[in-house]
Amino acid sequence: MQLKKLVAGIDMGGTNTVYALVDEVGTIYGSGTFPTNLYQNFDQYIVALRDGILDLSSKIEREHKIMGIGIGAPNGNYYTGCIDSAANLIWKGSLPMAEKLKVLFGGIPVVLTNDANAAAIGEMIYGSAKGMKNFVVITLGTGLGSGFVVNGEVLYGHDGFAGEFGHISYKRDSRQCGCGRRGCLETFVSAPGLKRNTFELLINENTQSSLREFTFSQMTSKDVAIAAQNGDKIAKMAFEMTGKILGEALADLVAITTPEAIFLFGGLAKSGNLILDPTRESMEANLLSLWKGKVKLQLSNLDEDNAAILGSSALAWKELNK
Amino acid sequence: MQLKKLVAGIDMGGTNTVYALVDEVGTIYGSGTFPTNLYQNFDQYIVALRDGILDLSSKIEREHKIMGIGIGAPNGNYYTGCIDSAANLIWKGSLPMAEKLKVLFGGIPVVLTNDANAAAIGEMIYGSAKGMKNFVVITLGTGLGSGFVVNGEVLYGHDGFAGEFGHISYKRDSRQCGCGRRGCLETFVSAPGLKRNTFELLINENTQSSLREFTFSQMTSKDVAIAAQNGDKIAKMAFEMTGKILGEALADLVAITTPEAIFLFGGLAKSGNLILDPTRESMEANLLSLWKGKVKLQLSNLDEDNAAILGSSALAWKELNK
Repeated sequence: MQLKKLVAGIDMGGTNTVYALVDEVGTIYGSGTFPTNLYQNFDQYIVALRDGILDLSSKIEREHKIMGIGIGAPNGNYYTGCIDSAANLIWKGSLPMAEKLKVLFGGIPVVLTNDANAAAIGEMIYGSAKGMKNFVVITLGTGLGSGFVVNGEVLYGHDGFAGEFGHISYKRDSRQCGCGRRGCLETFVSAPGLKRNTFELLINENTQSSLREFTFSQMTSKDVAIAAQNGDKIAKMAFEMTGKILGEALADLVAITTPEAIFLFGGLAKSGNLILDPTRESMEANLLSLWKGKVKLQLSNLDEDNAAILGSSALAWKELNK
Repeated sequence: MQLKKLVAGIDMGGTNTVYALVDEVGTIYGSGTFPTNLYQNFDQYIVALRDGILDLSSKIEREHKIMGIGIGAPNGNYYTGCIDSAANLIWKGSLPMAEKLKVLFGGIPVVLTNDANAAAIGEMIYGSAKGMKNFVVITLGTGLGSGFVVNGEVLYGHDGFAGEFGHISYKRDSRQCGCGRRGCLETFVSAPGLKRNTFELLINENTQSSLREFTFSQMTSKDVAIAAQNGDKIAKMAFEMTGKILGEALADLVAITTPEAIFLFGGLAKSGNLILDPTRESMEANLLSLWKGKVKLQLSNLDEDNAAILGSSALAWKELNK
């Protein structure tokens, strides 16, 4: 029997680290997880991660070889293999994660990028973007992330940090953003953005709404989605407002990189047509006429539970197949 | 003596067509020009262009060979080699310019793109972007054009028309744009944009200004530049306003493609620090902190008179050296 080639995919989140062994067609041969902040020392974290991967490997009956490792991490830089000043991690400064894992795994290729770029590569290798040379993945969660693929390659830019579409300006000097500025797109379009839009509508409209019974701290984007599904007018307006703003921004995006398709991904994308329909309508209304009706806008079809792991694995496969 | 390898560079403008024979280091061996709209029939135009190039060739004493042809043209599409519905040309529909020239020149490589992309390639091969893999050229003339280079390749997008940075929205539902929409960046940042900004200031400010003696039709961006150089306050404010808006837009651009450098090019860029200083100040003020002080903003150093021709020639050389 032929030696099965696998890669390790790692999804490093602020809360949990998930890792898995995955083959070239996206079959997961085993996965594990542990809390990211369990270790005060980054080296201990790396060793625990190595041990977790080796443990998975030992449980696979089929003869196999780990060919490479792909990592999706907050502020992950593809060029340097480092995680730089990620706000959600307890270790500060620049963390040479790829290099450290490479040493522990005997020099196999280890590549790292941020979550949104990993999602884009996952979409390209395992998802709906198969065969596409120019597309964008927009991740809608705590923030708005973006992974651009141009001429078949991820757009990393000069320094490895390109694709911060959440931090283009939507409305200057308005809502405070985590980045230290005001009015960034992600303060309007993201899970917290949807909540802020909801409260803005509660202020401006007198329409009855079940959402008037939530505190600002309590309310989540899921509450708004459930209310919208139950016919709550304010909740529906909040999705329409969010989609309208995202559509305007995507029309500008098309004018710059002109992708074949744009995929929505992440928590907010789970609300499906609630977000997709107003986004598409607004994008179409704002596109230059030459692009009207020509750019696909759709939800990612990657299984949400495994998407991050598949993205990281795909990153490794892409590197190995270069 | 070795056979000298040359390419023909063609700059097809709405008014004039300029053509030249150029070697790989940018030396021009001869050039010619004729009015673009001299011929009712596009085929006659192509034949005249061929004859012009052959005439140049016959006058060069050194033994040489024309290896390829590069064309910069309005709405030129690199993928198809066609000019599609260019507003400034008398021939309508899709013009297969590359294919027609290729036939007349015995099948040598003929490549075509739009003016801004040609300028970007010129900057990459002959100008200040030598060796850069990620940069942007912004052309400031009748409109605002842009040529993006990403991973060392021009960003053509899915359909060949990417890089319409002049048509991202600056202020929705405001100034009418040639594209049929309102509020596009180029209605604020371009030669006519500068004039519109000037009149907006004449409306809003009571400051004395020599520019109050111009009709809207009379005034050109050059008049505003001369007034600013003579210390006219409104003229200086108009440049500051234009630079402020451009800088805001460039900060968003950096968040998306993260170039190493941004080059300003074209008529308005000739006004030098009048436009460069407020643009840089505004870009820096609006950048995410991780990019502050890290993205070069400078004027193109290509000789303005020959830049378009050099860009088209560079396009041909880039294709030949693939």
